[in-house]
Amino acid sequence: MTNLEQAPTATDSGRWRESAVDAALALCRERAFHEFDISDIAARAGVDVETLHSRWPDRKLLVAEALLGSVAPRMTFGATGDLSVDLRAQLAATIEVFADPHIGPHLVALTAEASRDQRLAGFFLKHVFGPNRAAARARFELAQEQGQLRTDLDLNTAVDMVFGPIWFRLLLNTGPLTVDLADSLTEHALRGLAPRPETGAPSGSSPA
Amino acid sequence: MTNLEQAPTATDSGRWRESAVDAALALCRERAFHEFDISDIAARAGVDVETLHSRWPDRKLLVAEALLGSVAPRMTFGATGDLSVDLRAQLAATIEVFADPHIGPHLVALTAEASRDQRLAGFFLKHVFGPNRAAARARFELAQEQGQLRTDLDLNTAVDMVFGPIWFRLLLNTGPLTVDLADSLTEHALRGLAPRPETGAPSGSSPA
Repeated sequence: MTNLEQAPTATDSGRWRESAVDAALALCRERAFHEFDISDIAARAGVDVETLHSRWPDRKLLVAEALLGSVAPRMTFGATGDLSVDLRAQLAATIEVFADPHIGPHLVALTAEASRDQRLAGFFLKHVFGPNRAAARARFELAQEQGQLRTDLDLNTAVDMVFGPIWFRLLLNTGPLTVDLADSLTEHALRGLAPRPETGAPSGSSPA
Repeated sequence: MTNLEQAPTATDSGRWRESAVDAALALCRERAFHEFDISDIAARAGVDVETLHSRWPDRKLLVAEALLGSVAPRMTFGATGDLSVDLRAQLAATIEVFADPHIGPHLVALTAEASRDQRLAGFFLKHVFGPNRAAARARFELAQEQGQLRTDLDLNTAVDMVFGPIWFRLLLNTGPLTVDLADSLTEHALRGLAPRPETGAPSGSSPA
């Protein structure tokens, strides 16, 4: 090369972060969680491991951030004016992510790792569970203002009652994660499990 | 010793299995899950590791079986005739187990291990999640017969809607596991999150 300056590289330009995230996602599509390490990401991204470590303390946090960035755009809680529509859509979007073979198993592995890794657990609470709970609470509060939810709810209980079951099935493999679960959970949660007396015309037996 | 026969030992008598289970539970009370191994259990039980391996393939299965045996007697789903009473009691009993510092963290560690261990995952499905689901479904079916639950429920959805949230909080540390959650989940699940029109007198705004 005649030019004394080196040609731009991913590292010089700052685009190396994006390359690393893309490489992590590509590896998530190709391999199981425990089948690649940070040097595989570095090689795929064309950066060195030290550079990756300047931004991410370890591979787990890099993969967690990459996966989160890839799914976050699909996870906006809608506000169409009808909570049952928006709740069903949000559950269906989450179930779709969980059921994605390139995402779900990595989420299971990462949350399992988080049980022994305070930093990773902190990442999930700060960037996943905290924001998810806040978004769901905000949507539920709007529904309360619009008369679509009872005003005497414990919102944390209400949120966990609809989103807890899909994490339960994902993490412990206790049942199928199919989109019809979104319909079923929405209907069961909003309407309740007990018989509901219709105005002026109780349906079926009354509770004792 | 003048007698040619050896004195009975734990191993000879068959009581070694019980000793091993007791030793595993004692270690669960004293140490974190990853702070003891099968040789610690063997030493505490007064048996050798090979003997333990003749019954349990590895330490994880031994600890899982020991913990299950210790909590199972506390986990019988009651049938007092009032589902709300029995569901609340079952949730409270489970929450109490989860919140026990000698049990909850070990359950978290074991289920995390199960994400990478098919045999352990199989143990949990066969001996924990399967029987728990069957017991809850049976109790819910009885409540349907007694007019205390809707007859058009998807029972798996209904069961996961009440028990999923407490696993969600246990495994991902997403919220407090206190006994008032048992009351709150029972009330929210049975009554539903949407406003319930009372017979002949709708309370609050109707859903749009």
